Amino acid sequence: MHVAPSKPRIRTPHTIFGIDPGYERCGFAILQKNEQGKETLLYSDCFKTSAKIPFEERLLLLGKELERLIAKYSPHIVALEKLYFTSNQKTAMHVAEVRGAFMYLAQKAGCSVCEYSPNEIKVAIAGDGAGSKQQMMLMLPRLIHIDKKIQYDDEYDAIGVALTASAVERNPTV
Amino acid sequence: MHVAPSKPRIRTPHTIFGIDPGYERCGFAILQKNEQGKETLLYSDCFKTSAKIPFEERLLLLGKELERLIAKYSPHIVALEKLYFTSNQKTAMHVAEVRGAFMYLAQKAGCSVCEYSPNEIKVAIAGDGAGSKQQMMLMLPRLIHIDKKIQYDDEYDAIGVALTASAVERNPTV
Repeated sequence: MHVAPSKPRIRTPHTIFGIDPGYERCGFAILQKNEQGKETLLYSDCFKTSAKIPFEERLLLLGKELERLIAKYSPHIVALEKLYFTSNQKTAMHVAEVRGAFMYLAQKAGCSVCEYSPNEIKVAIAGDGAGSKQQMMLMLPRLIHIDKKIQYDDEYDAIGVALTASAVERNPTV
Repeated sequence: MHVAPSKPRIRTPHTIFGIDPGYERCGFAILQKNEQGKETLLYSDCFKTSAKIPFEERLLLLGKELERLIAKYSPHIVALEKLYFTSNQKTAMHVAEVRGAFMYLAQKAGCSVCEYSPNEIKVAIAGDGAGSKQQMMLMLPRLIHIDKKIQYDDEYDAIGVALTASAVERNPTV
């Protein structure tokens, strides 16, 4: 069983797949971590699905994209942002459905699955659980080289989740 | 794309897989429907997972069981009970995660996926959207031959979901 709810074991060099789950926009980021613990961003994207198609079809597209990325990059760890309920329960439920499909597929592919709350991610990236979005977006390029223009927050967030998983390996008390 | 959010197309004889999604207990029921529209219960069970293992592992067991049943019975339609939020948001979120994994896997296997609310199921089984649990459990054995002792409501509910999908095919205005 490959499950590491919060503290994945260190195994370098290895690949960490960070996900900011969503169905309108879903952030994906894949880092490679070398023996010295330095992370390189291999891939990041904001995967979008159309509101014109039923949710079930959007879920199918999202799951297929996850399977494609797992097959291509063979990540050891898949880290997801934890979901918190918002005022829009229908949206929250659909995001949970996407998360469930991802968690199942990642485990089925042999990856360790871990989850981090927005607070844990802010502590890992900016040292402050109450850090602002701006603070996060300022800090990320200091922690990892990003050689592309990032248009959506979801992609930044996915990089943040992956870096959090990496930071937790380095210092499990983060 | 095999998606039928609420009104699956008629294709007899065929197999309908009804699911009452959950992670503590999950109801599964598989019906075969012949050319005359008569349903036979091929399989039903309440699949349980232990509260002693992390949710991720329970999700993995549930998804593997779904994949096993789909491979064994090759259902044309997978019908799920719709989720409504309860006071326990953590439970609701985990049930949504299970639903998401199921919806993805069913579509990936080429099944049509449809969903019914508790109200729609009560109307289809007992003719009354406000029907009680007792009324449902009295009606089910009148609609389909059940030759086993059923211990958990979840299994009854799964049979109800599958019969609802079958009733909707017969009369799409149900």
